[in-house]
Amino acid sequence: MAQNPYNTDLDRNAANFQPLTPLTFLERAASVFPDHTAIVHGDLRRNYASFYTRARQLGSALQRVGVGRGDTVSVVLANTPAMLECHYGVPMCGAVLHSVNIRLDAAIIAFQLDHAMAAVVIVDREFLPLMEGALALCKVTPRVIQYDDPEYDGTLTATDAQDYETFLASGDPEFDWLMPEDEWDAISINYTSGTTGDPKGVVSHHRGAYLLAQGNALTTSMRKHAVYLWTLPMFHCNGWCFPWTMSAIVGTHVCLRQVRAEPIWKALATAGVTHLCGAPIVMSLMLSAPAAEKKDLDRTVQFFTAAAPPPEKLLAEMREAGFEVTHLYGLTETYGPAIVNDWHDSWSLLPAARQAALKARQGVRYLPLERVDVLDPETMQPVPRDGQTMGEVMFRGNVVMKGYFRNPKATAEAFAGGWFHSGDLAVMYPDGYLQLKDRSKDIIISGGENISSIEVEEVLYRHPAVAVVAVVAMPDEKWGETPCAFVELADGWLPDPDELRAWCRSHLAAYKVPRRFVMTQIPRTSTGKIQKFTLREQARQFVV
Amino acid sequence: MAQNPYNTDLDRNAANFQPLTPLTFLERAASVFPDHTAIVHGDLRRNYASFYTRARQLGSALQRVGVGRGDTVSVVLANTPAMLECHYGVPMCGAVLHSVNIRLDAAIIAFQLDHAMAAVVIVDREFLPLMEGALALCKVTPRVIQYDDPEYDGTLTATDAQDYETFLASGDPEFDWLMPEDEWDAISINYTSGTTGDPKGVVSHHRGAYLLAQGNALTTSMRKHAVYLWTLPMFHCNGWCFPWTMSAIVGTHVCLRQVRAEPIWKALATAGVTHLCGAPIVMSLMLSAPAAEKKDLDRTVQFFTAAAPPPEKLLAEMREAGFEVTHLYGLTETYGPAIVNDWHDSWSLLPAARQAALKARQGVRYLPLERVDVLDPETMQPVPRDGQTMGEVMFRGNVVMKGYFRNPKATAEAFAGGWFHSGDLAVMYPDGYLQLKDRSKDIIISGGENISSIEVEEVLYRHPAVAVVAVVAMPDEKWGETPCAFVELADGWLPDPDELRAWCRSHLAAYKVPRRFVMTQIPRTSTGKIQKFTLREQARQFVV
Repeated sequence: MAQNPYNTDLDRNAANFQPLTPLTFLERAASVFPDHTAIVHGDLRRNYASFYTRARQLGSALQRVGVGRGDTVSVVLANTPAMLECHYGVPMCGAVLHSVNIRLDAAIIAFQLDHAMAAVVIVDREFLPLMEGALALCKVTPRVIQYDDPEYDGTLTATDAQDYETFLASGDPEFDWLMPEDEWDAISINYTSGTTGDPKGVVSHHRGAYLLAQGNALTTSMRKHAVYLWTLPMFHCNGWCFPWTMSAIVGTHVCLRQVRAEPIWKALATAGVTHLCGAPIVMSLMLSAPAAEKKDLDRTVQFFTAAAPPPEKLLAEMREAGFEVTHLYGLTETYGPAIVNDWHDSWSLLPAARQAALKARQGVRYLPLERVDVLDPETMQPVPRDGQTMGEVMFRGNVVMKGYFRNPKATAEAFAGGWFHSGDLAVMYPDGYLQLKDRSKDIIISGGENISSIEVEEVLYRHPAVAVVAVVAMPDEKWGETPCAFVELADGWLPDPDELRAWCRSHLAAYKVPRRFVMTQIPRTSTGKIQKFTLREQARQFVV
Repeated sequence: MAQNPYNTDLDRNAANFQPLTPLTFLERAASVFPDHTAIVHGDLRRNYASFYTRARQLGSALQRVGVGRGDTVSVVLANTPAMLECHYGVPMCGAVLHSVNIRLDAAIIAFQLDHAMAAVVIVDREFLPLMEGALALCKVTPRVIQYDDPEYDGTLTATDAQDYETFLASGDPEFDWLMPEDEWDAISINYTSGTTGDPKGVVSHHRGAYLLAQGNALTTSMRKHAVYLWTLPMFHCNGWCFPWTMSAIVGTHVCLRQVRAEPIWKALATAGVTHLCGAPIVMSLMLSAPAAEKKDLDRTVQFFTAAAPPPEKLLAEMREAGFEVTHLYGLTETYGPAIVNDWHDSWSLLPAARQAALKARQGVRYLPLERVDVLDPETMQPVPRDGQTMGEVMFRGNVVMKGYFRNPKATAEAFAGGWFHSGDLAVMYPDGYLQLKDRSKDIIISGGENISSIEVEEVLYRHPAVAVVAVVAMPDEKWGETPCAFVELADGWLPDPDELRAWCRSHLAAYKVPRRFVMTQIPRTSTGKIQKFTLREQARQFVV
């Protein structure tokens, strides 16, 4: 075949090619709408001109202390203006943003600082004692900068770390910030809290952040000037890229130091909030607030939820309260949400229970994700679209991570066969919507039969005595494993394992019925996820 | 400096990298919303499943007759379903879509077919006589396929060309279509109707089409399931990428064979149209329709306009009629609109005349365009942001063309200094919004002074006798050039050059006053643009 004529004398050049990066979103927002409110935090209002200037100063200040391309800046911050500034200022000097989960312990943070080779740490003074613990354990010796959040009203320890505002003031407000050399350059690293072995550092690049940030707006029809409330922690997978999405649509961030009902309702009532994200626990928190704290809303507010399917009762109550709930799903390895329960208008005419069942499904690919499927991990073939056969959720596309930092073995395993292996088990419905059934490691294998812990939990959730439940594998000499249920009781109910066992027997195959019921307070992560690995360790003691 | 650790063992692979292409938008829309109406055309309703299947069949049928990567498929079609299918089916076999302006003459079309080396021509039967004229003149011998649009009610000539439906039926509905090998691969070629020399073939790539298609939705806050009416010709710069935008948001195309008021109002009333595009002439056409044809709208409809600033009176009437008008600007070389008059809410509180003046400005960069500026073409420095000093509009970013096909000299000139030179002259305001003043070639240079033909036209437009006006350069022995005005009179007015001359004298510097006024019917292109080159030729006869 002759040379493709459309590839001749038509090369990339400075006029027609630039690396994709979400940093340009902020530059545009500041140049077109300099006076539009970018950030609300307590009584503070900061416009886009100021937001951009401060981000440039941060980037410049970092560069002046020697931070550059390929360096890591670790931050231990709540959902504050400083956290937003770090999402732009850190990559503006070519560095990589490492947001630390504030609920981790010092030893794990120390591991992360060493592994990421942190050059600088920016830490909210509330978390300074934690950070000092981590710094005492780690080998690296990063420069420490402390951030004094005026909205923090707890006690402060004495410190000689440099103040964030002083540091920022040392930077050039006209800083000619660095574009990535390649859109494949890293923009952030986020450590996943693995249940076994060391945490893995998920590396994201500018291209993916650009695409997912736009994907958030497109997939969820966010309009120009939308107002976003920060109920989702930004240390959780860069706040699903919403720190960048909001600049793309010139929206307003409403910061929130703590996820409590009263400030959430206050922000909804006074700040014109149009969108927020969170696990179902955030919805419960809002709905269970005292009537005096709740407000009537003059608009429909979009609530994006992930981490667990939203229960029917919660959906009904949220609708009543003026919210439209959209179910999303993704992993740190996919920049946050890469799957959306893309709602069909006709579904809104179905009975509430059917709607909830449809909404419990995780859904279909985000626009910037090229492929998602449920594959048999042995054969790498798609499972039948029968809503029954389990397989592993696998992803392919530009919003899949660069890989795991300094861990080529884990990277190679994750990308085996040209797909990202999520470790999540799911079924695929005939209409192409997938539904999670379990994490690979959460599946219970009893006498060779797979038991979905989620299926058992769903049955128990329907019993009125059950407030929260988690089912994990318990070692069993005869069957290998057998289910064990940990239950938080609803108010006013007394422990009655026999009642719950009978309930399960009438709704589940016998081999799926938990052998043991433990009434207890269930441990959770900072983002509301149940810590199953802790429960599994407990259950390991219960050998039958 | 040590090797950047974030570039080690973190390479692109099949799991985390795919070429960007808008073709995946259609695949997603069809898989998630197969039953949603994709296309409305007269009584025809076609859903996304069918749209996608037919596009695949077209791609497959083309491949089966030997069309592949780097081949050109030329189409001469109105805004019909076939035109939409070609926007997907042609690139699905790796070929490049060449949409021909149906108002061109046979000789220019013949030039384009030869220059693009057309392998196949798909032609609406209305335009078959035109195409036969072109085929008689050109050197290439493309396969000819004719499309019978049921909405065409004119006379048909006999033909032995293959029927489009038969051809399409020969394709595989499950065709495993070709992704681009690289997102830099060409997706389309569009010839600009240059006023001098041969037309230039503007080559667009998949990456740019993907980004601008999303940019349309983001910049203009288009929601999921928006309904788009095709008043803008798709042969005009691929309909500004809206054929691809609509799949991204799973919207509905309402086709329109002819831009007439009656079918436009009918579609607005019955098809739930939310968005449409067009030159100001389309607004005039709609507003001047008989009252019986106009309809009350139950929603605000978005009208995106380009080509000329929307006059104040038109804006007021459009608002009255239920439309929100947004002013866009771009060139074929920028995939259509790359500049938007991004409206500030506060501007809506200003007096109508001030609002119109603000809306007359072309505006600021689209989100996917990295840079636009008004530069002095000699020094390549930005002009002062004073709203006065003229310079050339220059673009830089991913939504700038690959270059001109088989024309490295023109490509190099267009990209000189690392910017795309638009040839449009503009001023920049202090707030970063640019306003066009003229095409480089439309500027009138009189005694060394630059005269903006747009400025003279604006003065004349304010006189009630003037319906349409175009000012061009007329040769002058003393001054080199001097302005000449061509005027279409408003209904009920008689020609009175002295009156218009006096009007200009009282509103313009003396040297800007047209030396001659010609009352005439002004020639336009198919897209409503005034053909200034024809007028310039006429004016050349008027040597003073």
